[in-house]
Amino acid sequence: MDTPVLRLQDLPPRWARFCLQVASFAADELACPFTRKNCLVACSGGSDSTALLVMAAILCRRDGGTVFAAHLDHALRPESVEDAAFVDRICNQLDVPLISRTRDVGALAKELGVGVEEAGRRARYELYEDARREFGAELVLVGHQLDDLAEDQLMRLVRGAGWPSLGGMCAYDPSRSVLRPLLLTPKAALEEFLKDSGMDWRVDASNFDHATTRNRVRNGIMPALCVENPAYLDAAARLWRQARMDEAHWDTAVAQAHASVSKDGEARLIPARLLQASPGPLRLRIIKAVLEEMGPGQPLCDGLLKVDALWRKGKTGKSVRFPGDKEARIAKPGIRVQVIDRKKASG
Amino acid sequence: MDTPVLRLQDLPPRWARFCLQVASFAADELACPFTRKNCLVACSGGSDSTALLVMAAILCRRDGGTVFAAHLDHALRPESVEDAAFVDRICNQLDVPLISRTRDVGALAKELGVGVEEAGRRARYELYEDARREFGAELVLVGHQLDDLAEDQLMRLVRGAGWPSLGGMCAYDPSRSVLRPLLLTPKAALEEFLKDSGMDWRVDASNFDHATTRNRVRNGIMPALCVENPAYLDAAARLWRQARMDEAHWDTAVAQAHASVSKDGEARLIPARLLQASPGPLRLRIIKAVLEEMGPGQPLCDGLLKVDALWRKGKTGKSVRFPGDKEARIAKPGIRVQVIDRKKASG
Repeated sequence: MDTPVLRLQDLPPRWARFCLQVASFAADELACPFTRKNCLVACSGGSDSTALLVMAAILCRRDGGTVFAAHLDHALRPESVEDAAFVDRICNQLDVPLISRTRDVGALAKELGVGVEEAGRRARYELYEDARREFGAELVLVGHQLDDLAEDQLMRLVRGAGWPSLGGMCAYDPSRSVLRPLLLTPKAALEEFLKDSGMDWRVDASNFDHATTRNRVRNGIMPALCVENPAYLDAAARLWRQARMDEAHWDTAVAQAHASVSKDGEARLIPARLLQASPGPLRLRIIKAVLEEMGPGQPLCDGLLKVDALWRKGKTGKSVRFPGDKEARIAKPGIRVQVIDRKKASG
Repeated sequence: MDTPVLRLQDLPPRWARFCLQVASFAADELACPFTRKNCLVACSGGSDSTALLVMAAILCRRDGGTVFAAHLDHALRPESVEDAAFVDRICNQLDVPLISRTRDVGALAKELGVGVEEAGRRARYELYEDARREFGAELVLVGHQLDDLAEDQLMRLVRGAGWPSLGGMCAYDPSRSVLRPLLLTPKAALEEFLKDSGMDWRVDASNFDHATTRNRVRNGIMPALCVENPAYLDAAARLWRQARMDEAHWDTAVAQAHASVSKDGEARLIPARLLQASPGPLRLRIIKAVLEEMGPGQPLCDGLLKVDALWRKGKTGKSVRFPGDKEARIAKPGIRVQVIDRKKASG
């Protein structure tokens, strides 16, 4: 492996532009200019996060930011030790400080009573949070790219998500300081960038088995869609952009409306005045938001539509049950939302 | 084949309820109570349209409506003559007047220079319109069901549709007098209903080849999604309902906004005042609507987002090109939309 190119001006023009596009996606479209910040890059050693590490190192050094890295060895495959060694080597080459940790994720899954995928996710985000604090990093950069986004949209479709959730994962989550600068960049371009820069990466063989829905979506359904439309990834990016715009709109509208929701003990009242002034899609989203803040349990669109229809027909006294023992009941002053049977269950 | 049950009260309670649910979907959810109207049922002889014919005959006789039928023999497969004979027989049994027509759709496709699928669609809708007039029918009932809807959503996803188009085909199109009363009914339930009623149907073998995107989606991708989520069809119905509500909202908002769009010769001006008063998703949909009314060519979300970003940044003089030689240009008084080079092309 050659010594990696560390400065933007040493890259071929095509790849310099490629890096600058990623920086501009974050700065202009996500309003999160990571290249001027202290960033922790989550690096598995796969092509996505290795490319992210190289690009972040180049861009941050140019713009005044700093890059750190974190790697979790999940101890699920014999090769994982070599993956850790690879990340260590590449961080040395790039002169990026690294925190590397080994965790028996198989044992953790048993201990927590969750699946291996979920246990791995939790162990990783625990490490990222520790490393972020230790390095004083402001942001955690994660390597999800456009193929992951398209796959995520399909996973959400399979699971019955509504709009705008169907548009896929967010690119910048300020509440967790997580940024995905590569979210609209195809995986193939990242691998080409690494090859042209003389960089290597590790391949996780477990991505290719067909044991999980995610892998069957990734290796079966996604390729089938790309055969029907070779520009399918572009379509996925467009869908994501439209979803983000609709989401921002509805989030703002729901937050404004929410100020009029009143508390009555543990119950909430969505007042008639607010419901009358709100168009259908906003009414549904207000009811959804109020149900969600009352505890776990995902309200589905069918139930929300039922409540809304009852409200419009003035069916005072009628109610609809939702997962998590929640109910929405039509009343004269509005829609009353509450958790039922809680006293019985705890008393 | 037994003589079919013709009255609701003769059906087993389960299937009587089944028929009434279809009637109530149309009357309550679509505000189109077909059972009291003169209806033309488009019948291919397949399970969907045969079930629709039987259900419509039962429901319309009960509620005061009338049922007629139309069948097109596409002359594409040797068995199509038998399909036509089957529809003729079943209409006799049900005492439903039928107009049956044979058309060489293969030749029509060549004549029109379109695909066989498109030529068949045109020939069918031509027949439906003729038959509707001859019978004095108010509505054309079409047999699309929930599996078709889920397939349509995937076809739209593949082709890169946005929201709410992604929710799938509409159930009631007043402009064409077309109603799809079975749109939220699974195909399997329709076939069970026919079997339990002692009715037969025809199977179109060409649905099972893998020659078209539609068939690969139907026979490959759809079953794969249903394996991952056995309740996938329920999810498709929910997505459809949410899309319809969002669509109604945005259509109303765009129509209201459109009153402020001014004409300047062949160009249109979306005034600054309107743009400033509209939230992002509405701005995009206004620009889209104005572009669409200026002629063929589908504006994609990326271009619309670009125009919107230029507008927000006040980039007077900048423009974005759209398919169909259309352009949207940022100006002081608003966004000017026009077809360019039309004079050059015709002069």
